Amino acid sequence: MQLHELETPALILDRLAMDRNIARLRGRLAPFGVTLRPHVKTNKSADVSRRIGAPGTPITVSTLKEAEYFLEHGWTDILYAVGIAPSKLPHVERLARRGARITVLLDNVESAAAVAAYCAAHRLRLPVLIEVDTDGHRAGIKPDDAELLEVAAVLARNDDGEGAWVAGVLTHAGASYDCRSAAAIEAMAEQERAGAVRAAQRLRAAGHAAPVVSVGSTPTAHFVRALDGVTEVRAGVFVFFDLVMHGLGVCAVEDIALSVLCTVIGHQREKGWLITDAGWMAMSRDRGTAKQPVDQGYGMVCDVEGRPLPDLVMADANQEHGTIRHRSDPAATPMLPVGTLLRILPNHACATAAQHGAYAVVAGGTDIEATWPRFGGW
Amino acid sequence: MQLHELETPALILDRLAMDRNIARLRGRLAPFGVTLRPHVKTNKSADVSRRIGAPGTPITVSTLKEAEYFLEHGWTDILYAVGIAPSKLPHVERLARRGARITVLLDNVESAAAVAAYCAAHRLRLPVLIEVDTDGHRAGIKPDDAELLEVAAVLARNDDGEGAWVAGVLTHAGASYDCRSAAAIEAMAEQERAGAVRAAQRLRAAGHAAPVVSVGSTPTAHFVRALDGVTEVRAGVFVFFDLVMHGLGVCAVEDIALSVLCTVIGHQREKGWLITDAGWMAMSRDRGTAKQPVDQGYGMVCDVEGRPLPDLVMADANQEHGTIRHRSDPAATPMLPVGTLLRILPNHACATAAQHGAYAVVAGGTDIEATWPRFGGW
Repeated sequence: MQLHELETPALILDRLAMDRNIARLRGRLAPFGVTLRPHVKTNKSADVSRRIGAPGTPITVSTLKEAEYFLEHGWTDILYAVGIAPSKLPHVERLARRGARITVLLDNVESAAAVAAYCAAHRLRLPVLIEVDTDGHRAGIKPDDAELLEVAAVLARNDDGEGAWVAGVLTHAGASYDCRSAAAIEAMAEQERAGAVRAAQRLRAAGHAAPVVSVGSTPTAHFVRALDGVTEVRAGVFVFFDLVMHGLGVCAVEDIALSVLCTVIGHQREKGWLITDAGWMAMSRDRGTAKQPVDQGYGMVCDVEGRPLPDLVMADANQEHGTIRHRSDPAATPMLPVGTLLRILPNHACATAAQHGAYAVVAGGTDIEATWPRFGGW
Repeated sequence: MQLHELETPALILDRLAMDRNIARLRGRLAPFGVTLRPHVKTNKSADVSRRIGAPGTPITVSTLKEAEYFLEHGWTDILYAVGIAPSKLPHVERLARRGARITVLLDNVESAAAVAAYCAAHRLRLPVLIEVDTDGHRAGIKPDDAELLEVAAVLARNDDGEGAWVAGVLTHAGASYDCRSAAAIEAMAEQERAGAVRAAQRLRAAGHAAPVVSVGSTPTAHFVRALDGVTEVRAGVFVFFDLVMHGLGVCAVEDIALSVLCTVIGHQREKGWLITDAGWMAMSRDRGTAKQPVDQGYGMVCDVEGRPLPDLVMADANQEHGTIRHRSDPAATPMLPVGTLLRILPNHACATAAQHGAYAVVAGGTDIEATWPRFGGW
């Protein structure tokens, strides 16, 4: 089957680019001797995840639905990297009883008390990471905050070897997405590493085992210069890459493995607009490049083979309509005929992929070699 | 079942508010004697759509998947309101052969020639609306443009009573979303009406039947003062409403029938942040209120009963994390305990609902009276 036989819009995955991206991060991390624990929230697909690592290798998930799905597909070493809501503990327990070696995350005394009490009452041996805030970006406890040891003490209070236990620390330098230079990302990676290691050292000094030091974001994973004291690195977007990563200097345009196939359905000639059948429903509303030096609108436009068309961007979107035009000179927009197939590179791979139920997989051309399903929801 | 038994995040639909919203638009349009052709792209659910009108009543769709689904559920009078890609005509034909009275849309000579040729070759009697541009917002031909009659002539060229035919005109005043006053929306509604009627008159003067004059958007449908010459009104968001509609003055906060249930999972106390487990995946990345006078962030925060908490907004989002704080004074954010359930009113109902696979239906309280599935994709 060929791309032109698909009904548009459709999500296209270039397997060759993806495999290169995976090899690149593996190669990047190999000298550091750390575990790669890929974040499968980006791909939500066993077919994609098998290209990163065989079932059984460690993964990170963002929802318990992801944990369910990947457990069913043979992945057992699962880190649920969103602060645990105590009401989700029975679901975590069900996963553990079915064979998942699931690790949960928290960053406060209330959650720690709830987890410790639940695990003690249910004889559930549960590894718990404490979230550390190394960039002021989101959740977590500052590495030197007294609360870190309070949380660990509450977790360990009932630890008779059959309940919750302090497995270590986790941090995510999400602020790396706002960096403007390689040097800034390198500095952020070191800040992420040093803060996580510092927090783990404090836990160990207080008598906790805390063997795990988990760090990661796609930018910092690619720019890190030292990982001393780190045991594992998490990243998700590195598999597909996207225009935000390109804008950060983390990848080239040719590395972006994901695109949305669409069809030209009309024109506004005097405005220099092409109208297509891929709107924000197909691309997502993510405008992550809007705050970067080069705003790519809703995406960069390529021909059906995936070759960028100079300076064409998807400038605007309705639910099922896209407006494509030349970036700066509407008069220079080529008035491609109705029926022309185009591929739009996304701002944010996680958000765009989430709008689709499957990947049409190509290997550099327009032959579809496979269709890989993906899931959504909770 | 109660809301607190749901795993968060989850999409909540207040049926009482929805039923009021439906009755309101029906009441608003009744004096004008026009047909309501609701846009089911907002709800993508037979259960919701049955509250608007019984199967068999006219509907508007934005994808052929919606057409498939609603045909299977008994709706046969279907307007596909996105310019037709010629490659989709075999799919349209399959729907028609299965009993759909499907109408397609186009705005250019190339598409008209393709549709006319396909319908002639396949003996497919297909009503075609010509899209008219009454607000410079997206697709369509200007009401007085010569191209209007050229397109109609191409469509009618092969009309021997068994092919494509000129069923009329359609316009959508999407620019009404950018209005800043009731008077501006009223003026936009009149501009939408007058342009569509003018285009239909030109078609009729040129010998085309063109019985249909289809207009609509939720704002203009609610503010229209005259519909002379219009035969049908389309609207989608009116069923649920959202913060963008509230910002336009089209609805009150209490009218917003859709919300996302989430759980507090932590705090950043010194910043006045609550962290929840509903991020942009649950809300969508739609920031439609960002360009309105009051920016609601990713949504307005309510308690579990749906009562707004004064000045609390979801200020930021990661994939599965939301950050909630007081709109202007972070120190005033109430540090609600871990485990607290909150409901977030969305910026844009179409975008937020699309992130979920089902509606948990309540009738004003926290009892779940039904779960209504919804679909996505193409």
